[in-house]
Amino acid sequence: MEKKYVYDFSEGKKEMKSLLGGKGANLAEMTNLGIPVPFGFTITTEACHEYYLNNEKVPSDLYNRVDKKLLDLEKRMNKKFGDPSNPLLVSVRSGAAASMPGMMDTILNLGLNEKVIAGLIKKTNNERFAWDAYRRLIQMFGNVVLNVPGSEFEKVLDNKKETKGVEYDLELTASDLKEIVNDYKKVILEKTNKSFPDDPKEQLKLAIEAVFRSWNNERAKLYRKLNSIKGLLGTAVNIQAMVFGNMGETSGTGVCFTRDPATGENKFYGEYLMNAQGEDVVSGVRTPKKIETLKEINEEIYNDLLEIRKKLEEHYKDMQDIEFTIEENKLFILQTRSGKRTAAAAVKIAVDMVNEGLISKEESILRVDPASLDQLLHKQFDPIAQSQTVPATKGLPASPGAAVGQIVFTAEKAHLWKEEGKKVVLVRTETSPEDLIGMNAAQGILTARGGMTSHAAVVARGMGKCCVSGCSDIVVNEYENYMKINGKKLVEGDYISLDGSTGKVYIGKIPTVDPELSGSFGILMQWADEFRRLRVRTNADTPKDAATAIKFGAEGIGLCRTEHMFFEGERIKAMREMILADNLEARKKALDKLLPYQKSDFKGLFEAMGHRPVTIRLLDPPLHEFLPKEEADIQELTAQTNVSIEKLRNKIVSLHEQNPMLGHRGCRLGISYPEITEMQTRAIIEAALEVKKEKNIEIIPEIMIPLVGGPNEFKNQKAVVKKVADEIIKKSGINLKYLIGTMIEVPRGALTADRIAEEAEFFSFGTNDLTQMTLGFSRDDVASFVPKYLEVGIIEKDPFQALDQTGVGLLVEIAVQKGRLTRESLKLGICGEHGGEPSSIEFCHRTGLDYVSCSPYRVPIARLAAAHAAIINKPKL
Amino acid sequence: MEKKYVYDFSEGKKEMKSLLGGKGANLAEMTNLGIPVPFGFTITTEACHEYYLNNEKVPSDLYNRVDKKLLDLEKRMNKKFGDPSNPLLVSVRSGAAASMPGMMDTILNLGLNEKVIAGLIKKTNNERFAWDAYRRLIQMFGNVVLNVPGSEFEKVLDNKKETKGVEYDLELTASDLKEIVNDYKKVILEKTNKSFPDDPKEQLKLAIEAVFRSWNNERAKLYRKLNSIKGLLGTAVNIQAMVFGNMGETSGTGVCFTRDPATGENKFYGEYLMNAQGEDVVSGVRTPKKIETLKEINEEIYNDLLEIRKKLEEHYKDMQDIEFTIEENKLFILQTRSGKRTAAAAVKIAVDMVNEGLISKEESILRVDPASLDQLLHKQFDPIAQSQTVPATKGLPASPGAAVGQIVFTAEKAHLWKEEGKKVVLVRTETSPEDLIGMNAAQGILTARGGMTSHAAVVARGMGKCCVSGCSDIVVNEYENYMKINGKKLVEGDYISLDGSTGKVYIGKIPTVDPELSGSFGILMQWADEFRRLRVRTNADTPKDAATAIKFGAEGIGLCRTEHMFFEGERIKAMREMILADNLEARKKALDKLLPYQKSDFKGLFEAMGHRPVTIRLLDPPLHEFLPKEEADIQELTAQTNVSIEKLRNKIVSLHEQNPMLGHRGCRLGISYPEITEMQTRAIIEAALEVKKEKNIEIIPEIMIPLVGGPNEFKNQKAVVKKVADEIIKKSGINLKYLIGTMIEVPRGALTADRIAEEAEFFSFGTNDLTQMTLGFSRDDVASFVPKYLEVGIIEKDPFQALDQTGVGLLVEIAVQKGRLTRESLKLGICGEHGGEPSSIEFCHRTGLDYVSCSPYRVPIARLAAAHAAIINKPKL
Repeated sequence: MEKKYVYDFSEGKKEMKSLLGGKGANLAEMTNLGIPVPFGFTITTEACHEYYLNNEKVPSDLYNRVDKKLLDLEKRMNKKFGDPSNPLLVSVRSGAAASMPGMMDTILNLGLNEKVIAGLIKKTNNERFAWDAYRRLIQMFGNVVLNVPGSEFEKVLDNKKETKGVEYDLELTASDLKEIVNDYKKVILEKTNKSFPDDPKEQLKLAIEAVFRSWNNERAKLYRKLNSIKGLLGTAVNIQAMVFGNMGETSGTGVCFTRDPATGENKFYGEYLMNAQGEDVVSGVRTPKKIETLKEINEEIYNDLLEIRKKLEEHYKDMQDIEFTIEENKLFILQTRSGKRTAAAAVKIAVDMVNEGLISKEESILRVDPASLDQLLHKQFDPIAQSQTVPATKGLPASPGAAVGQIVFTAEKAHLWKEEGKKVVLVRTETSPEDLIGMNAAQGILTARGGMTSHAAVVARGMGKCCVSGCSDIVVNEYENYMKINGKKLVEGDYISLDGSTGKVYIGKIPTVDPELSGSFGILMQWADEFRRLRVRTNADTPKDAATAIKFGAEGIGLCRTEHMFFEGERIKAMREMILADNLEARKKALDKLLPYQKSDFKGLFEAMGHRPVTIRLLDPPLHEFLPKEEADIQELTAQTNVSIEKLRNKIVSLHEQNPMLGHRGCRLGISYPEITEMQTRAIIEAALEVKKEKNIEIIPEIMIPLVGGPNEFKNQKAVVKKVADEIIKKSGINLKYLIGTMIEVPRGALTADRIAEEAEFFSFGTNDLTQMTLGFSRDDVASFVPKYLEVGIIEKDPFQALDQTGVGLLVEIAVQKGRLTRESLKLGICGEHGGEPSSIEFCHRTGLDYVSCSPYRVPIARLAAAHAAIINKPKL
Repeated sequence: MEKKYVYDFSEGKKEMKSLLGGKGANLAEMTNLGIPVPFGFTITTEACHEYYLNNEKVPSDLYNRVDKKLLDLEKRMNKKFGDPSNPLLVSVRSGAAASMPGMMDTILNLGLNEKVIAGLIKKTNNERFAWDAYRRLIQMFGNVVLNVPGSEFEKVLDNKKETKGVEYDLELTASDLKEIVNDYKKVILEKTNKSFPDDPKEQLKLAIEAVFRSWNNERAKLYRKLNSIKGLLGTAVNIQAMVFGNMGETSGTGVCFTRDPATGENKFYGEYLMNAQGEDVVSGVRTPKKIETLKEINEEIYNDLLEIRKKLEEHYKDMQDIEFTIEENKLFILQTRSGKRTAAAAVKIAVDMVNEGLISKEESILRVDPASLDQLLHKQFDPIAQSQTVPATKGLPASPGAAVGQIVFTAEKAHLWKEEGKKVVLVRTETSPEDLIGMNAAQGILTARGGMTSHAAVVARGMGKCCVSGCSDIVVNEYENYMKINGKKLVEGDYISLDGSTGKVYIGKIPTVDPELSGSFGILMQWADEFRRLRVRTNADTPKDAATAIKFGAEGIGLCRTEHMFFEGERIKAMREMILADNLEARKKALDKLLPYQKSDFKGLFEAMGHRPVTIRLLDPPLHEFLPKEEADIQELTAQTNVSIEKLRNKIVSLHEQNPMLGHRGCRLGISYPEITEMQTRAIIEAALEVKKEKNIEIIPEIMIPLVGGPNEFKNQKAVVKKVADEIIKKSGINLKYLIGTMIEVPRGALTADRIAEEAEFFSFGTNDLTQMTLGFSRDDVASFVPKYLEVGIIEKDPFQALDQTGVGLLVEIAVQKGRLTRESLKLGICGEHGGEPSSIEFCHRTGLDYVSCSPYRVPIARLAAAHAAIINKPKL
């Protein structure tokens, strides 16, 4: 079938995006809805595709077809293109199937020349308007079509304003503009050795081809690459009759939203200016008026707009962003599209539209981007104050929220100042588990090194605390208590503000606002829960985290990292005593000191979680993480303990590892020192028994053996756990069930999952470590190459943020399949950082996991993402 | 069918090992061959199995059957069990299907009591002999059957010798022995509250059950566990008429081998003593005589022995280790089995036996353990001198051979002293690439830390140089130039001797002997080549290594690590200049300096290898490995370069990685700095072109991209290589083919092998790194837990020595299958350390790889192991 190449707006519809582009399809849709759109037609993306296939030549009879459509257009408009007595002016706009805002070209006011302008002046009786339109045409055409640098035209304009002693374009008179037109033409002749084309048809042809070419300009190509826009044919070209909002006080232009894009409130919202063009509304030179005031100026048009608002929203079933122009008391709609909105607005609109009968619950759920919920759950900067402040630098947006406080450089100082009632921001080169107390005390954390999954980032997200990590512009000197941001020195006590959602760092204080979870949020979450299959648990180590997570809807704890319980106060002392012990007896003695702490922590967790399942991972990190690194701390430790400095140093050296990630950690510790596993099991089981008895709650603790690479490691540790647990339970006389399972985080664990599942009652995929080992990426070190990998497109997303479904995902699939083969009832979850990331959650849904577990503040995101996954993957009937 | 439980020797044969045990089956086989074996019968392993199934009770009518066979035995021997006038004495010996030397129990001289001994004395007219026999019975029986500690009997014996003022048992008289017998009986009564049983039948029953029980004693269970002996029913029990070599000068006993077990020479070899028992031959109290001298004492018996030697060897078709006893001029054969032999003897015997028509080439190949060849390829200690020296400590046998030299603690000193003509041993806490020059200069390397695949171990094996690593008893203080071995201080210049085959470390000098590769070695290798399917390549970085490998039969280079070329002399300077460069231009300038070195290295390699394929891996290690670590070296470097110490330090800090194994290395470097890939490609292609032109050899370089985790990384680097290579080739006007492939060493690489193979022409499995990442084991750090894992049986073998076939092997299989799916012609090899380990080579054969690559000194091992694999896995017709 021969290709049509050119469609009148009346011939298209919104479903024809890939052929007509988004803009063209929507103009067609509106035209057919009876919305007053300026007449016009669209050259298809196929034509653009042919243009490139054909060595940058348009299809042979394209211009014949354009001419025909132009004739139709002239008839409808009752004007003639290039006719000085009754001139039709047109715009030529790009528009691809996917939105690429500002990337491609547009030319307005085509059809003007020396003769036509005389006619236009006569017809409009507005000399200034006519010359300004001509000036704009030449400037745009010169720049876009003829490739004359925009600065050449700016120079002419600026010279004129200077000569005339005026500040704004609007202050220039008609004759000024006429002179500028002449100067512009000289610039073009000078720079291109050609005259500006007088023939309107020639203008049109050149403009069409320029738009085709703009599809492949560098910024457009880069934009498509960065936004993974693939498989499109090219851009469409929309040729449309011009309407002017600057033809006097009966003309105007504006932008409106069918609902409030900031709050989602169902009220008409917008701005306009009379005697203005679109750019005047957004440039800030004149202050636009609220849409409501249009009623006073022209009630009829205002009512028309209200009707169109209703029609478009009902038709598109979404909040619309509408551009309109009034030309001499006549309303035209130039564009409509789904309006951008804040997360709060998105939630409210989605819920309201269900209640209004516009959309279904499923659609409502899909309308809200799960990742955007982050905005709703954390303290934010006052948006106006923030927009008026220039950031000093930018790091990685490691944990969302806003933090304002006085700079401190050590965890101790953070703790101390907090006790004194100060608000502090902890600034470190990078954090380690020793900094925990300081991180907890701080409003936010800023680090010079470390990625999105560095220690600082992971812990901060767990705490729901603002964190900017890997801020390479800062240099921290914690010994002399100062830092430098791009050379600017800040000392302890100076104020700083962090935006953890964007990574921006500000010097000084910016006011913040608290998040407000509107009723719509709760309703949407409830709907999400109706549709999702995946359970959502949380990663929480403390009753406080657990309580936060429950508030956000967590259905259990998927990962309690017991080692975080060893860093505070007396505990770290006992832990270090254990590490420095020379023999089993001394180790047991030290462990006995840790037992009551662990037990009371677990009791707190069980009490907070009630009947909900709690998965507790046994000690995981290498022991050297618990020993001091700084000289002062080493000195202090020898003073505290009876251990000589030499022995302590030797211990530190002997525990040093080349690659701690792949070292003596996880179940390897429990196998080397079964007494650690014994103590932890005792703490868990005794805590569970006591809470069960005291509160009369059915508790089934899930004990998780970390870093298992095969059945033998699991069997070894399972035997240790069972022996201690069964003995305690028997002695207690209370009936207590418990589960023993493992983390699948070593590739070999996934590969031998069938054998492990013979013994293990649940798997939790530790996709952080699984990613590290499967890809060979140390998450502490990837900053040296992952940015480059993203830049050149070797990877599409940071694999520590979004699960690498091809590689790591394949191992997960293998493990799920093998595991269920041996044990059909195997409980499967994920507790890596990916458990809170929407695309990874969708993968978990498809792969048949039972639950995801994520940090408390991501629980709502996970609930919504799980609902998305269920709806998207619903089997088609 | 009812079980028989008891077999006369004449009823069995050597194929009945699982039922009769190894010893029983062989005694039966010899009996049926007409060899003069003392008559006897065997209780089956099934009886032992029943004993355990039946709660440690023997099958109900076992003793009836034993009695019947005993009657037969009495008839044949013309003696009667328990008859004082003509007593039959018997031995009761254990013997399972698998050899478990010394693990289970044996009791001799059963049938003696106070009455019988009188008859024995009368019959033999040898009072001392008789009392000694009785004493031995009570001692063994008391210990083995009645569980009286052996020390109780030793005490009695020692007291007697002291009282008598004699040194050896032999000096005790008949009446001394009689008194000892009485004392022994008292000991038994005292310790067990029971008398020593006088009834011979009772003795026999108790002895049989004791042997059954010994199947499950702790040491036997441990031995089976350590040697992976599984699935056996239990032990058989052999009851055999006693013969005595100590009945006077017409009696004697000895051990002989059908060929020389040290050299393999086809001559009768053995030792004997007249009037002696077996233990006298081995105890060293009396010096045994050479077997040849027996001819002079009793030519008939000597000739009988010669005939038996011939018969047994022809029958078993292997060199036999034979125990014999002469009782009053009558020859008895007590045992025959395949004789242990040195590697040299094994090779010679295997080859000779083919030439003698005894065995096939296949059998000959299977007769030699590939791993044992190591002994033949390295310098060894003089065995006698070594046996007389006590080692000071023991480390890991990291690289075989013997090394004697003066201790030095730095690479520089090693180099310097070597230049002065000294022989040195380099002692380091652990080595790094900077030590290369010193390792090269040293006779051997000793390190305090690091496992079998530490830097020191890997490099030393590559060099064929003796290395003992991970010797935890030593402490090295390289700043003050001394070391301590278990507290004993040694200083620079002291002599030390290392045995890299056992890990033993000696203080002082031990004389060494050079290996001699006999003609048989070459023949066996040639036969191996006829049968193997796998090609064998070598890992070699220098022409010298390449030449060594060719000598050993390498068919190509499977891995040339180019980074090893960057450490020597001027090169490291240029490398560091490159690393410290601030911009592309400066980096290129430094790389230009490296180009001629690389090119000339590659030319050397191509020239050495001739037409054989050469795989060159592009730069792999992280850049920080090339920067100095010691303060002095840092100072020196700033002096050499124009780089400030601050900048240098910053660079070192900025390149520091938490987990270098998972950091910025491999193709990640080439992607960050394509100019490195470009320079290396240029060096390879230019070298190949020049050698091709100069020597007229067809050269097809194989360029290998390391650490590829997916298709995109490979495509990126392939494009860089192709661009440079094709340009150079085109310009040269010479036709040169080259291949571009990758190492599969990241789990994700294996999982995406189908996609990688779309672009890659070959895969080489880098199983060192693949093991590290798949198991999550850092090979530099595993010493902290792998010994424990081996001890408690979580892993059977060190996965860095023998490929983990379950986990890593599964990834290899996945990659082979996926890779060949996309590209049928994909060339597949392995270049990890496993490429030289027999069980791993068998895996490679089964998995369908095309070649293995290993260090030069392991090439013969790999050739033989590949032949084993082919023969063992030959499809059955």
